[in-house]
Amino acid sequence: MNVYFGENALTQLSALTYNYDKFFLLTDENIFKIYSSMIASMIPEKEVNKIILPAGEQSKSLDNVVLIWNKLLEAKAGRDSLLINLGGGTISDIGGFAASCFKRGIDFINVPTTLLAMIDASIGGKNGINFNNYKNQIGLFSEPKSIIINPYFLKTLNERDILSGLAEMMKYAFIADVAFLDIDGDNYLDFIEKAATTKDEIVGLDMKESGLRKILNFGHTIGHALESYYIDKDNYLTHGEAVALGMYSSLLLSKKYCGLDEKWLFFYEMWFKANLNLLNLTDFDVDSIFDFIAHDKKNKAGKPKFVLISAPEKPQIDVEVNESDIIESISVLKEKFSA
Amino acid sequence: MNVYFGENALTQLSALTYNYDKFFLLTDENIFKIYSSMIASMIPEKEVNKIILPAGEQSKSLDNVVLIWNKLLEAKAGRDSLLINLGGGTISDIGGFAASCFKRGIDFINVPTTLLAMIDASIGGKNGINFNNYKNQIGLFSEPKSIIINPYFLKTLNERDILSGLAEMMKYAFIADVAFLDIDGDNYLDFIEKAATTKDEIVGLDMKESGLRKILNFGHTIGHALESYYIDKDNYLTHGEAVALGMYSSLLLSKKYCGLDEKWLFFYEMWFKANLNLLNLTDFDVDSIFDFIAHDKKNKAGKPKFVLISAPEKPQIDVEVNESDIIESISVLKEKFSA
Repeated sequence: MNVYFGENALTQLSALTYNYDKFFLLTDENIFKIYSSMIASMIPEKEVNKIILPAGEQSKSLDNVVLIWNKLLEAKAGRDSLLINLGGGTISDIGGFAASCFKRGIDFINVPTTLLAMIDASIGGKNGINFNNYKNQIGLFSEPKSIIINPYFLKTLNERDILSGLAEMMKYAFIADVAFLDIDGDNYLDFIEKAATTKDEIVGLDMKESGLRKILNFGHTIGHALESYYIDKDNYLTHGEAVALGMYSSLLLSKKYCGLDEKWLFFYEMWFKANLNLLNLTDFDVDSIFDFIAHDKKNKAGKPKFVLISAPEKPQIDVEVNESDIIESISVLKEKFSA
Repeated sequence: MNVYFGENALTQLSALTYNYDKFFLLTDENIFKIYSSMIASMIPEKEVNKIILPAGEQSKSLDNVVLIWNKLLEAKAGRDSLLINLGGGTISDIGGFAASCFKRGIDFINVPTTLLAMIDASIGGKNGINFNNYKNQIGLFSEPKSIIINPYFLKTLNERDILSGLAEMMKYAFIADVAFLDIDGDNYLDFIEKAATTKDEIVGLDMKESGLRKILNFGHTIGHALESYYIDKDNYLTHGEAVALGMYSSLLLSKKYCGLDEKWLFFYEMWFKANLNLLNLTDFDVDSIFDFIAHDKKNKAGKPKFVLISAPEKPQIDVEVNESDIIESISVLKEKFSA
């Protein structure tokens, strides 16, 4: 797998697509509206079959996988076909899954358009869909042939989605590299390539998440539960916002279980309130959030295990946490961050 | 992956399941009826969640994959769970696919109960389901942790299903080892282990079917088309019967394209009529069969390519065949073998 980065990264497309006969472009309505003419010029002189989904996490459904499979089948897609996933994490997640299961796998490449996808979701080969309201229950490990990270797309990204990406970048400070502690809404462009490389290096050491890769789940256990809880509600949370909240809970638990210095809680609360100021967390039911955690795929035999840290850059995986402490950490979130 | 063979192979189960916390047994109604008490004793002192599908190829549907995923989700299956696929190729195909996509993959083992599954379908990591009437359009390469081949199950297999397995064993004579030329309805038990080993060796050299493994598709291009054509008809064909017919067409094409000696056509026609005497091929439409081939996943960019042989043990992959010759070879099938 190759990662291409920079303002000219998109020019790689014509070389990367040279060996294929049929092209399928998966994207969402919003992206297609903004970039349709640019998309047409991306692979000149080649016909591109377009598959356009509604925007948003709700599109990561089995129904839409079936829609993609039908489009591939109608156009007689085969081993010489390439799927180009142009969009945020929703698009690369569902597209990677659909491609990997079609005729035992056709090639796909990811062209992330959101900050979150550029520094996290499009890298690492995890793909999947939501099922019965649970996040990513159905999916695979399957790497794209290439990833093209072109910051050009961020110019049209709305501010809430930019800010959502910041939390996942701050995550790298806690689990891997304190350089990311300096990130804010003004300087984040300078950190994109470093963040993508950090993710790629961690994944490269443990593709199937048998150990080390789990550190990437810092903040994600409670984050996923929050995201699942709000998925069918009007006031949804973005993935980045949910993880930003989950990280606060994880820092709280890190203090109790791993002796994390309390100053990091103050630092992160201040950073959160300064940067994720578009987050509007409506009231929620703590027990319902906890119920989602019982289904979280990172639990073994039903016992909740967390990634925690004893200090920035010092992650610990598989820390067993008492149910009462989890519930308390969710209650604190509610006090501190809900409207 | 380990293959256990013999009349006592099932005793391996208790050791193989030792490291798991939750067990799921996927099987079909017929097998469950016959072996329910034996199944209960297979993993003593452990609770086994049973998932029982209707018997037959029609069960290899996305609806049944969803049913399996729901059962796994309800019982909170996770990384410490094991799915045991007890049945023919239908069960290992759908079970392997469902397990491999659930939470990015839980472990599974195959316990084949049919001759065809013992010597072919359960080995090699190909899994999948039918989609829009096309065979195996959706699926993956994903190997079971173990395969347990216990000929005990063949005692209750009906004769038509035994005879169906013979054709896939004869296939090994054409592509890999002339020792299989001696196979018949009386001596096939002596060849099971050798057939399973032959398949496992070929797969081991080329898991993802980029070259050599394609030889296993001898007879399968037209075979799959016939199987797809009859899938929703009263007078269905078994997979083995369809492949048996497809192999005759492939031998015809081998004579034309690879100089195969005509004596092998006579030999195979005689062997076929002596051994597959329960096959009842109703009249079919040659053009409809050909339409299915255009969708066959082994074609690149729509040009039909076949595995042919210049002699037994001398396979050739990726032989491009003219449409008119394919259609003629299907027409000959109709003359020679249909009622």
